[in-house]
Amino acid sequence: MQLNRQRLLHDTLRRYLRRQSVPHLGRLLQKTRVTDLAVVLSSFAEKDQHRVFERLPDAATKADLIVHMQPPFGKRVLDPLAAEEAAAILSEMATDDAADILQDLEEAQRDKVLELLDTDDKEEVEDLMAYGDDTAGGIMLPEFVALPADTTAEEALIALREKADDVEMANYIYVTSAEGQLLGVLSLRKLVTAPPHKRIRDFMETDVIAVSPETDQEAVAKLVSDHGLLAVPVVDEAQHLLGIVTIDDVIGVLEEEAQEDLLMLAGAGAPVMIDEGFFTHVKNRFPWLLASCGGGILSAMVMGAFESTLAAHHFFALFLPIILGMSGNVGTQSATVTVRGLALGQIGQERKVATLRRELMIGLSLGLLYAAIVGAVAAVMSDEPLDGLAIAFSMACGMMLASTLGTAVPLALSRLKIDPAVATGPFVTTSLDLLGVALYFGVSIPMALALIG
Amino acid sequence: MQLNRQRLLHDTLRRYLRRQSVPHLGRLLQKTRVTDLAVVLSSFAEKDQHRVFERLPDAATKADLIVHMQPPFGKRVLDPLAAEEAAAILSEMATDDAADILQDLEEAQRDKVLELLDTDDKEEVEDLMAYGDDTAGGIMLPEFVALPADTTAEEALIALREKADDVEMANYIYVTSAEGQLLGVLSLRKLVTAPPHKRIRDFMETDVIAVSPETDQEAVAKLVSDHGLLAVPVVDEAQHLLGIVTIDDVIGVLEEEAQEDLLMLAGAGAPVMIDEGFFTHVKNRFPWLLASCGGGILSAMVMGAFESTLAAHHFFALFLPIILGMSGNVGTQSATVTVRGLALGQIGQERKVATLRRELMIGLSLGLLYAAIVGAVAAVMSDEPLDGLAIAFSMACGMMLASTLGTAVPLALSRLKIDPAVATGPFVTTSLDLLGVALYFGVSIPMALALIG
Repeated sequence: MQLNRQRLLHDTLRRYLRRQSVPHLGRLLQKTRVTDLAVVLSSFAEKDQHRVFERLPDAATKADLIVHMQPPFGKRVLDPLAAEEAAAILSEMATDDAADILQDLEEAQRDKVLELLDTDDKEEVEDLMAYGDDTAGGIMLPEFVALPADTTAEEALIALREKADDVEMANYIYVTSAEGQLLGVLSLRKLVTAPPHKRIRDFMETDVIAVSPETDQEAVAKLVSDHGLLAVPVVDEAQHLLGIVTIDDVIGVLEEEAQEDLLMLAGAGAPVMIDEGFFTHVKNRFPWLLASCGGGILSAMVMGAFESTLAAHHFFALFLPIILGMSGNVGTQSATVTVRGLALGQIGQERKVATLRRELMIGLSLGLLYAAIVGAVAAVMSDEPLDGLAIAFSMACGMMLASTLGTAVPLALSRLKIDPAVATGPFVTTSLDLLGVALYFGVSIPMALALIG
Repeated sequence: MQLNRQRLLHDTLRRYLRRQSVPHLGRLLQKTRVTDLAVVLSSFAEKDQHRVFERLPDAATKADLIVHMQPPFGKRVLDPLAAEEAAAILSEMATDDAADILQDLEEAQRDKVLELLDTDDKEEVEDLMAYGDDTAGGIMLPEFVALPADTTAEEALIALREKADDVEMANYIYVTSAEGQLLGVLSLRKLVTAPPHKRIRDFMETDVIAVSPETDQEAVAKLVSDHGLLAVPVVDEAQHLLGIVTIDDVIGVLEEEAQEDLLMLAGAGAPVMIDEGFFTHVKNRFPWLLASCGGGILSAMVMGAFESTLAAHHFFALFLPIILGMSGNVGTQSATVTVRGLALGQIGQERKVATLRRELMIGLSLGLLYAAIVGAVAAVMSDEPLDGLAIAFSMACGMMLASTLGTAVPLALSRLKIDPAVATGPFVTTSLDLLGVALYFGVSIPMALALIG
């Protein structure tokens, strides 16, 4: 039913925008849930997004919309605003969100806006901006509920009642020493169900799962997801509690990382929002194509060395696309399965050899299957059945080689601590084209010709 | 620090398994967190996973491990067990998890185990199994906290204290009528911070985001993620509350769907766990290769029609792999970006034309760039500079066509309500090979020969 509601919001919004009916638009926005608006708006053209943003009732709603839209939106609407207005909007956000958005702004605007924030907010935001973008420090929220260990359950509930407005997500209560060191954690559920006069030290969980501010965000997300947590505390080396990473940030991280793997494997480069500029896209896709272009030129040269064969037996050229294409496809399949298996932690040290062996066998089976089909077609098309044999032989070897290489390359890269998602694609497809051409013209065709001759 | 702990657990576990030291293994498992064990174990060989599973202290721990491991594990360890033991383990799980696992078991074992469950559990599990695997009904938890609207905040807390043991995740309290219809929702946080004597009807949220049991799990996940919820209620047509989908299930769904898109685009078929059998993998990868094989045979036939050209000018064959390869790569880049943009809801109706135009321009720019490079190389390698021109022309046209097709196909599929992730890969790469060959031999080469002639 929410989907219908969003559909309705979408259509109404479009109608008001087209008719330029400002009062209607204002009234609609007043009663719309911001999260619905964010979903609907993300498919609108930029200038319509701006028009809607301008008509939002207040700074708090604008802040809320920015947080729920995909990243470049915040930069796009805040950069052109007067610094005072941008600062008013950012003050309405949780500090971690404000820090993320500020980081994206033009430098001049960022400096002006920072100066206009409250001293407290300014300090917290600057602290957060100092951590790397992809670390626990960069995504943590520096606001949380921390109480001393001798608080009773009842006192804790009262304390929570006073604080709850300030804190984005109080699903856990952290128990700290006088020096702010993390001693234990308590879920809100456990607190609510505890006898009122019991001290929290007596029922808190002391074996706390925590991360350091430098922990990679992907590791944090995996931890939260593996252990079914709603938040994870971030502590420094002396165990001082610095902030918490909440589950909604984790969902964002998981989506980002899956996206990254997918685009990297397809050679489309680092994830770029679909509404980034044209040149960013071109620049992102250029490198993989360069690798592939280099490989292609080498293939042409290798084939050039066999030009006399090609001149005398041009029939073989007809089947080059299918041999290279099928090898490339099998190699991509194996590479994708392996990269994801590594990312999900399913291929540990113990499984590497087994994985390689299994993929080799899969490549060989599929290779033999398709070699039979294509070889038969080639034998029928040619006057010489042995031509079909040469083509089938190339195909079976090529496909087996492809699945082996497609598996071995990501395994080797992960061993060398290089992200397999980044380098596997270009390396595998380029090498396969080159190997395929060499195998075909250097081994299979000469072999068939020798048999015929 | 958790990562180090897991490393340590991994090494210790391996040592004990190798030495077969059963008492040590038992003691280690007794004091290990099950979620850590699940992470570590997932990289172990199957027979070692079994040995560890058998040594776990009790049915509750076994149940917990199964829930935290990836799907085929539950089937693998429960199918060979005595039905009584399997039933004892399943009774320790939340009903939604038990239903998921039961669905995977061998039919004979499943029927035996179902008969051995409590009448209550059995009914709930059977109800859940009736819903589709990929729907809200299939992943919902039929246990939740529901209270009447005239309960006071204090009474609600007391009720919660009594119920909390039964309920997996009580972060929301649902408010229902005497007939079980959903009237409103209350976060635990809001309840804790409300004045004790206030009635919950006076501070509950009445504009509840809810789904029906038939809602697709991907839509549910998007809703939870878009609105920053911890759980979403599932209601029937008459608004009766049936269950809730919690955020940990949603994280699972998001990971599954991202995985699915990735594997589908790579033509590796539906997501199969890496430890599924060999034939499942072969069967999964076969169809895409069949499409590609059909396309390749057609390419060979098209080229065969130009055999006399090829015989007279075999130089052109050298550059066929690079032309087809580069087009394929650009097409895959565009297809991947478009499929993900559609999945994330970034390409709405308003953006389709703009997206197509942008990808066409990207393809053209990259095409011209690489056509210049490859054309120059070809002109140097050939005796005839116009050969280079024909190759450059094919390359630029091929790459522009590739990015256009790579964008248009997923857009058209999504319009036809076909999942673009499934059909884009095979369709785009196969058509591109065929179009590339036809363009090269049918247009570019004859044109160049006419100019030379």
